[in-house]
Amino acid sequence: MRMYDIIYKKRQGHELSKEEIDFAIGGFVSGDVPDYQMSALAMAICFNGMSSRETFYLTDAMMRSGDVVDLSRFDGLCVDKHSTGGVGDKTTLIIAPIVACLGARVAKMSGRGLGFTGGTVDKLESLGSYRSSLSSEEFLSQVEKIGIAVTGQSGNLVPADKKLYALRDVTATVDSIPLIASSIMSKKLASGAHAIVLDVKCGSGAFMKNEADATLLAEAMIDIGKQFGRRVCALITDMSVPLGHFVGNSLEVYEAIQVLSGKGEARLTELCVALASNMISMVLGLSIDEATERVLDAISSGKALDKMREWICAQGGDVSLIDSPTALLGAKFKHEFRASKSGYISKIDAEGVGIASMLLGAGRAKKDDEIDHFAGIELRANLGDSVCENDVIAILYASSEELFDGAVSKLDEVIEISPAVPQKSELIKKIVF
Amino acid sequence: MRMYDIIYKKRQGHELSKEEIDFAIGGFVSGDVPDYQMSALAMAICFNGMSSRETFYLTDAMMRSGDVVDLSRFDGLCVDKHSTGGVGDKTTLIIAPIVACLGARVAKMSGRGLGFTGGTVDKLESLGSYRSSLSSEEFLSQVEKIGIAVTGQSGNLVPADKKLYALRDVTATVDSIPLIASSIMSKKLASGAHAIVLDVKCGSGAFMKNEADATLLAEAMIDIGKQFGRRVCALITDMSVPLGHFVGNSLEVYEAIQVLSGKGEARLTELCVALASNMISMVLGLSIDEATERVLDAISSGKALDKMREWICAQGGDVSLIDSPTALLGAKFKHEFRASKSGYISKIDAEGVGIASMLLGAGRAKKDDEIDHFAGIELRANLGDSVCENDVIAILYASSEELFDGAVSKLDEVIEISPAVPQKSELIKKIVF
Repeated sequence: MRMYDIIYKKRQGHELSKEEIDFAIGGFVSGDVPDYQMSALAMAICFNGMSSRETFYLTDAMMRSGDVVDLSRFDGLCVDKHSTGGVGDKTTLIIAPIVACLGARVAKMSGRGLGFTGGTVDKLESLGSYRSSLSSEEFLSQVEKIGIAVTGQSGNLVPADKKLYALRDVTATVDSIPLIASSIMSKKLASGAHAIVLDVKCGSGAFMKNEADATLLAEAMIDIGKQFGRRVCALITDMSVPLGHFVGNSLEVYEAIQVLSGKGEARLTELCVALASNMISMVLGLSIDEATERVLDAISSGKALDKMREWICAQGGDVSLIDSPTALLGAKFKHEFRASKSGYISKIDAEGVGIASMLLGAGRAKKDDEIDHFAGIELRANLGDSVCENDVIAILYASSEELFDGAVSKLDEVIEISPAVPQKSELIKKIVF
Repeated sequence: MRMYDIIYKKRQGHELSKEEIDFAIGGFVSGDVPDYQMSALAMAICFNGMSSRETFYLTDAMMRSGDVVDLSRFDGLCVDKHSTGGVGDKTTLIIAPIVACLGARVAKMSGRGLGFTGGTVDKLESLGSYRSSLSSEEFLSQVEKIGIAVTGQSGNLVPADKKLYALRDVTATVDSIPLIASSIMSKKLASGAHAIVLDVKCGSGAFMKNEADATLLAEAMIDIGKQFGRRVCALITDMSVPLGHFVGNSLEVYEAIQVLSGKGEARLTELCVALASNMISMVLGLSIDEATERVLDAISSGKALDKMREWICAQGGDVSLIDSPTALLGAKFKHEFRASKSGYISKIDAEGVGIASMLLGAGRAKKDDEIDHFAGIELRANLGDSVCENDVIAILYASSEELFDGAVSKLDEVIEISPAVPQKSELIKKIVF
């Protein structure tokens, strides 16, 4: 078998076999297939797509390129959630304790952030001494004991995806539905969950700019999951504005605690309830109405917040911050960002707010950059709110006053005020099974 | 400027600017643009093509990547010919002395063969001590003095094409009209000729499998030439059977001498007359009828053969071989290939005959392989000839008897005999200006 023939076959629009896909991915990981051949294949896939069967084979080959976590001891109760990237998306921090307190298991490996989207592990590390690397045994026994563990990625999970993604990122071959779907699903499947809820973002701040493309991506991922015998569903959600009011690591933990205390911002709360309800509906075999009722009760009764305490305590974090969360808003300097004129907030561009937050120190431009856990942005206005000139519409948090200028001029660009009431888009556009 | 954006732009089907193409090619040659980005761009070009302007910019960037030969001292009389590869194609050996004896100038740099197609320089080196590397000054002064010089490629001509072709060859991105056209034309333009006749082969043994694709390639190359202010025309010719009766280095020199002596095989002679007539028509400003008359006279009068002697003598070759050419058929062993049944010769696959000849030692499988100048195949029958069982239809030439088995079984595959008279295709399908 020769890589040349595999590239040519895909270029001609033919379907690759399992053996051919295994050869390409296996060779790429071992170094026998050079980058320049893999990038040519990726580009041919961008043009000619992949069938459902090819996408399954590709996901399978990538998944098997490294370790696969075995969660079979948990009797099908392990449920995972994946978001396709978002600004201010702290849903994992909220839904993990909700579903765990209702009997599902959350054994989650989560990444660090790069660019303007934060990683769950970075957020959790703002809780004092939270241990984000657990040994495999610690990880599994914590899931067994309290139903929840969240660590950074350990071991050698899906090395094929790491290498392929890095190559796609520099060869303009990222936005291909089979390549995105297989990249996401290979990682989710290698992590071992029995059921997966996908949160596929669409809008200006997301990979998928419109609902139709987001639906295609969701369908491709559900199709893969089904071929692996997993239960999968997807919510198509809006990502044209940031999710919630807080962007930045400790700020997002603060907001997560607010939601679990029943004081969360409406859209964020709505999304978390929908995600958690679908998660427990799948693993506990409940109707969606019954599931939603249990989720709402988990919040109002305080059981979900209790589970968060138990979880953070088990991983060595500072539980006192959960009881006094305002300490999480403790950046050394704060700056009020005010409305330049009166009118309606007509745009709060998610990506722009993410970049402003990164400029304040909350994100990494490069992989090894240090992040400032207390840096970030608190939005004081929602899309569609009426504001008067000079009203405070955001608070900027940073460790140095010098950082405000850059972030302010970015916010000036991406927050718009107009005389007319803007159209708002629904947060949850549809659910795909 | 970033290579990523250039790849993405081409992937989206947009036209690249001169600056973007210069950046990509310049960076690729210098090593700043890695192979994996260039192969992704090449694949995107295979799918989305290139406009006439982009193809011109690409050719220009490649041409300027190395040395450009200055033939301006020859007053527009330098004419070159390019064939897109063929089996048994010894036309350069024949037309160079024809056009030179009629007043045109041939300053030709020619390649060595790889695979089953022979290189002109390899063929010339079967003439004893023929010197295939001349210094730039020797080369030009010989053109000045006798009107003709043929050397191997010297200096640093179009390094971008060498590097890009090697990459395309392993990434299934060879067969793209703008990439083929710019590759060929950048080399022809860097060699400095004022007028160029292209011989674009089509058929089973050629890059272009049908006349329509061959015409598109010819038009693309003519379009490039015109944008550079050169006179260019193209003959679309059949390459489903080998050209002439002889395949192999010294054997092809033998056949070239036969044509120049007025004893050449009909189709080969027809093609050489057509190519040479178009060449001198362009540089001497003659009608094609007038040009054809002069070409035929150059052969029948012996002037062209005299010019060949002068040329070979000037480059140190063994001129006695021109007067006693049967010595060129002096392989140590010969083997008769006989018809397995009676009927009509219905197929003599060009590529297959080329491979059989390579198996006898006439070609290189790898770049550094030695070739046997006396190895090759003499065809004793033409397509459509009626043969009886056991008639000799080819003679195989080799330096060792062990080599015959492989070549014979290849010929068994690719020479077919059938009960019905086969359709013959015309050699010259059309001329494109």
